[in-house]
Amino acid sequence: MNILKKIILQLFAFLFCVFTLSAQTPADWVNPFIGTTNYGTTNPGAVVPRGMVSVVPFNVSGNSPLNARDKDDGWWSTPYSWDNKYFTGYSHVNLSGVGCPELGVILLMPTTGEVNGDHRKYGSEMSEQVAHPGYYSTYLNKYDIKTEVSASERTGISRFTFPAGQSNILIDLGNGLTNESGASIKIINDHEIEGWRMTGTFCYNDGTERPVYFVARFSQPAEEFGVWKKMPKMGHEAAWSATSNKIKYYKDFKAEMAGDSIGSWFTFNTKANDEILVEVGISYVSIDNARLNLNHETNNFDFEATRKQAEDKWNKALSKITVEGGNDDQKTVFYTGLYHIQIHPNILSDVNGQYPAMESFEIKAHPNGERYTTFSLWDTYRNVHPFMSLVFPQQQLNVVQSIIEMYDESGWLPRWELNSTETHVMEGDPAIPVLVDTWFRGIRDFDIEKAYEAMYKSATTPGTENKLRPDIDHYISHGYVPLMEQYDNSVSHALEYYIADWNLAQLAKELGKEDDYERFLKQSKGYKNYYDKEFEIIRPKLENGEFMPDFNPRQGENFEPSPGFHEGNAYQYTFCAHQDMDGMIALNGGKKEFVKKLQAIFDNGHFDMANEPDIHYPWLFNYVKGEEWRAQKELNRLMTTYFKNAPNGLPGNDDTGTMSTWIVYAMMGIYPVLPGDMNYALSTPVFDEVKIQLDPNFYPGQELTIKKTGSGYNISSISLNGKKQKSFFINHADLGKGGVLEIKH
Amino acid sequence: MNILKKIILQLFAFLFCVFTLSAQTPADWVNPFIGTTNYGTTNPGAVVPRGMVSVVPFNVSGNSPLNARDKDDGWWSTPYSWDNKYFTGYSHVNLSGVGCPELGVILLMPTTGEVNGDHRKYGSEMSEQVAHPGYYSTYLNKYDIKTEVSASERTGISRFTFPAGQSNILIDLGNGLTNESGASIKIINDHEIEGWRMTGTFCYNDGTERPVYFVARFSQPAEEFGVWKKMPKMGHEAAWSATSNKIKYYKDFKAEMAGDSIGSWFTFNTKANDEILVEVGISYVSIDNARLNLNHETNNFDFEATRKQAEDKWNKALSKITVEGGNDDQKTVFYTGLYHIQIHPNILSDVNGQYPAMESFEIKAHPNGERYTTFSLWDTYRNVHPFMSLVFPQQQLNVVQSIIEMYDESGWLPRWELNSTETHVMEGDPAIPVLVDTWFRGIRDFDIEKAYEAMYKSATTPGTENKLRPDIDHYISHGYVPLMEQYDNSVSHALEYYIADWNLAQLAKELGKEDDYERFLKQSKGYKNYYDKEFEIIRPKLENGEFMPDFNPRQGENFEPSPGFHEGNAYQYTFCAHQDMDGMIALNGGKKEFVKKLQAIFDNGHFDMANEPDIHYPWLFNYVKGEEWRAQKELNRLMTTYFKNAPNGLPGNDDTGTMSTWIVYAMMGIYPVLPGDMNYALSTPVFDEVKIQLDPNFYPGQELTIKKTGSGYNISSISLNGKKQKSFFINHADLGKGGVLEIKH
Repeated sequence: MNILKKIILQLFAFLFCVFTLSAQTPADWVNPFIGTTNYGTTNPGAVVPRGMVSVVPFNVSGNSPLNARDKDDGWWSTPYSWDNKYFTGYSHVNLSGVGCPELGVILLMPTTGEVNGDHRKYGSEMSEQVAHPGYYSTYLNKYDIKTEVSASERTGISRFTFPAGQSNILIDLGNGLTNESGASIKIINDHEIEGWRMTGTFCYNDGTERPVYFVARFSQPAEEFGVWKKMPKMGHEAAWSATSNKIKYYKDFKAEMAGDSIGSWFTFNTKANDEILVEVGISYVSIDNARLNLNHETNNFDFEATRKQAEDKWNKALSKITVEGGNDDQKTVFYTGLYHIQIHPNILSDVNGQYPAMESFEIKAHPNGERYTTFSLWDTYRNVHPFMSLVFPQQQLNVVQSIIEMYDESGWLPRWELNSTETHVMEGDPAIPVLVDTWFRGIRDFDIEKAYEAMYKSATTPGTENKLRPDIDHYISHGYVPLMEQYDNSVSHALEYYIADWNLAQLAKELGKEDDYERFLKQSKGYKNYYDKEFEIIRPKLENGEFMPDFNPRQGENFEPSPGFHEGNAYQYTFCAHQDMDGMIALNGGKKEFVKKLQAIFDNGHFDMANEPDIHYPWLFNYVKGEEWRAQKELNRLMTTYFKNAPNGLPGNDDTGTMSTWIVYAMMGIYPVLPGDMNYALSTPVFDEVKIQLDPNFYPGQELTIKKTGSGYNISSISLNGKKQKSFFINHADLGKGGVLEIKH
Repeated sequence: MNILKKIILQLFAFLFCVFTLSAQTPADWVNPFIGTTNYGTTNPGAVVPRGMVSVVPFNVSGNSPLNARDKDDGWWSTPYSWDNKYFTGYSHVNLSGVGCPELGVILLMPTTGEVNGDHRKYGSEMSEQVAHPGYYSTYLNKYDIKTEVSASERTGISRFTFPAGQSNILIDLGNGLTNESGASIKIINDHEIEGWRMTGTFCYNDGTERPVYFVARFSQPAEEFGVWKKMPKMGHEAAWSATSNKIKYYKDFKAEMAGDSIGSWFTFNTKANDEILVEVGISYVSIDNARLNLNHETNNFDFEATRKQAEDKWNKALSKITVEGGNDDQKTVFYTGLYHIQIHPNILSDVNGQYPAMESFEIKAHPNGERYTTFSLWDTYRNVHPFMSLVFPQQQLNVVQSIIEMYDESGWLPRWELNSTETHVMEGDPAIPVLVDTWFRGIRDFDIEKAYEAMYKSATTPGTENKLRPDIDHYISHGYVPLMEQYDNSVSHALEYYIADWNLAQLAKELGKEDDYERFLKQSKGYKNYYDKEFEIIRPKLENGEFMPDFNPRQGENFEPSPGFHEGNAYQYTFCAHQDMDGMIALNGGKKEFVKKLQAIFDNGHFDMANEPDIHYPWLFNYVKGEEWRAQKELNRLMTTYFKNAPNGLPGNDDTGTMSTWIVYAMMGIYPVLPGDMNYALSTPVFDEVKIQLDPNFYPGQELTIKKTGSGYNISSISLNGKKQKSFFINHADLGKGGVLEIKH
């Protein structure tokens, strides 16, 4: 029987290959331009799943009239904007879907004619953009250069098709999205250069700086090369200097060069349509490792081979889920969402396993697998990690192993980790729900006792020494975090702690730590302290137990500061105690009143689709029997209103895949409302059929099919493998057995 | 006989040692403060003979009221000024006696209290300066810190005696004398740091940049450390940044850091009078070599051992000449001159023999001995190298071997070489007289055919391809360099070429190249083209053969620009054809007229003691029999007027020892008027007796004694080893045989 099964599987695999060769592959349904405006902050650059490197068209600098807005005008957090057309090169390390400026450095720029190192001069209008997973191309109008890029995990490859004449390739280490500065380069010979560039200051926070190292190699020797440096402005001495406050060019320079703003050029005599390629290896460990990564992952300037490998990797990842039905735009929104989920967290470790340890300059090596980075946990704990546990469980295992290593290395769990630094952005203790949720989903090949130790530490250490919960003393003594300063986000802090503590309680129970269970469960109910009967909503509270005066529950809309709340207002936080649904419903006056208040939030425009605190709200209707239709209705509205096959097709920051996970789940008709709780809330799938390949190393089932039958979006009944379900929830363990979840309409 | 001789020598050596132990050593007669004001541009820093490293109190920056003038106010070319009191650290690579800003970097500064990386803030008033060859000390009033420094060839050592409390040692890689910028550092651990600092732009010329590498090691682990960087000024984004245009401090930072202005700090908790020492190894090749140099030359923080070794090296070098008679000030002026002669040229090669090749980024290794650098040849060809040939012939052999290597490596002889770059400063072809003079003085262990090839190349290559003589085409076709632009220094150029060509002719004759001899000898007489009968002086000439109109022979005094002349005027250049004394005398109207005109230059104040073109003038009287008394008289006047045992004791820039060589020769009563001509002009010695130890590897004699007998400065007769001399000249070969040159008065 086993052999027969194997043959059938192989046959299936073969047929699938034939199919994908002759028809559209999942990657063909990805539109990398989705989210590249309307603050989605995604980008169309070339990247492979969880690649350390992404090669992104950088068009957000230079104050050109071709740019609608750029980084020099104010807060700006993405290397690319759909609304901009002033291209100044391809950046090789980038963040996708974040709200803070960082990375966007090591810029590779082709030009023609005389070399100029000033990006305000050398930039070009871009046109004819093409983006496909693992591939991006644009034409530079000013220079008549076609540019194409692709990537492997740790390298980028660029192919520039030049006109006849003097053609240059610049590597600019000055310009970039990050607000950190400083770089060093050394030209090795006429076709290779190495160096590093400082990064850090994510969200303008100091203390998170690291160099990123690179080696770049050209497909042919340059006829001329050199480095440049923007010279500091001199005082009186400027009278004798030709280069004060100007760019100084060092032709044939082959020693190290360092400065705040430096770059290098390689010049070639080209005939029309000559192609010159550049491969760039990246590492966060050392130049040696960047070279090792480059040597290991290069296809020796075979652009098509790298592109093909990148596309194959995307198809492999994206084909974990196949969909039937739905229109082309819906398929595109879905697969682009799945694509965005595969960008962060990303690989930090080099091909030899080395990586910089958390909050340290020590170099460690990952014993097995890859070390991940870019943990925007306040966002992603809500849905990204549960999703990864279901669809990419090996990757999610890497996530929790990385998180535990970070604790080992730094003594603390991460909150918003970037390249082995804690950026201290956002609040709460979001690694706890990630670890607990992953454990409960059955992904357990990690040291749970050490994980518990780490979680217990942040949940119990006094505030003066507590890096994750600095206000824990009040939290424990008062049961809530009082407002001590106007914009201290105290309520948001506490609400995160309640969820984390509820998760920790569940795990404590599982591990037989009864006392801890009682303690943390009790703590998790402290949210009730914030409920103000006058306004019938949660409200910031003072140390003396009184509510904050002059309260306006609407304050906090549109990212304006709001006392007690971070990136939201009281409406968007008031139903964030879903770890205690019964309690929260009772607190809000019972089921009827709860549904009324929840519906009013949608009806009165208080729901914010663009930020995380309230993104679970639609599914909360499922907790009141008979009101599930409201979820189906609101979700249908939200999906069609905010998610589109268009550059403005995300409601706001993708938040390293959180918004994309939201839409992917919503389109499949399931949502893990509360991390740590294994029940998915069900709603109307967009597709007639969704097939999820289950990883046999983690799940007993092989394939889960979510089948939508009937029409419209009102669900009439639900059955799993033919057995009718009593509620609008379904358990993760049941789904993991595979089979067919039928949602009838 | 040989054995007896050896015993006598050993006995002498022993007696000498006893003497030096019980009495003043030559080093005790050195006053390193001579030349540290009045534009002498020497410094009192700790250095060993020809050391790559000098540890110099840097007090020329910060715009403090404690400074009479500093580098931020305008042209400034020395890391130290006697007139300044605002100390901002010890710089570890420095030039002595030059007129252009360069080096003066890798600043080590002790402070107390809170760390501040801004030299305008952290600097301190200095007092209680002590300087002795190989040792310097000053007290920092602001911090109550005693600082002492010493050096080996390639390392510096600092000993800081701190008060009780928080004590810091800063390494500032931003501030410096050079106008180049950019540095990189990496803290290795709590007691070691490595990095490099860009240098270059000597005389504000671009194209001469190189990094200088260092490793610094502390005698005890720091309790805290970090790096800083002056952050660039942001635009709109500054609203969110705490560090825009400010110094940003990176505590515990242990990765690479780079930028225009960076530094690091190491902090210690000290008790009163705690000593912390720092050793700094330097290399122009690599950080690895800097560490190698440090490991090789360190005395493991034994300051007194390093100081003793440095002093011993000075005594060994300075005791090549001993003097009797003269007053203390005269002895001090003399030995300080000899000290300055031993600073440049200096060692460039590391302990493993490696050095950066000339005009290249290749690393070479010196097969035997040391590679030298800092060849200010336009200055030093006149007297420094003839002096070295007589007193330090092995060092002079190193000089010519280095010069020939530079030709091998770059294809051209050097003119003003600094750290294996050609700075293109000043004019002419001064390596030619150095090579020829050295050869004729009997120092011949170098490839004379290759040397001839190199000299022939610059003397014959057409101007468009000629790096040393760009105006050679006119020079050959017209016999002179015409004035083509107002300040093209055309006459100065040609006068240098005539001297070089005369030297080349002498060597050609020696090597049996008769045609070349005739050709270059003829060329060397072209100076006559410039003689203008109207003004009875040399005068710039136009391409059409007419003299430059609107001529003022005085123009060019005090460094004002002067058409045709560089750093001088017609008076100071008119007797610079001393390669053809008979011809020049005839041109000037015969002996009587020549003496009259020469005397008038002195009498009318046209003689410039502070610059090179005319420094041989006093001895020109010796060329007219019966007029030698004028030389004796003028020299007596010049020596007492311009050379003093005081900070203003040099007439102007020491010019890497040229002025010091002038006074040392003058005080001994001999002067090599014309390089390539083996006749020394004689004049009145200052001392009763001068003994020069001759190197038996180069000279048949062992000791040359110049004895002054009688009183006054009018010479009555001269005898060598008892044989009365007919002229006021004596031949080098005769002196090299040793014995007694008696100058009677």
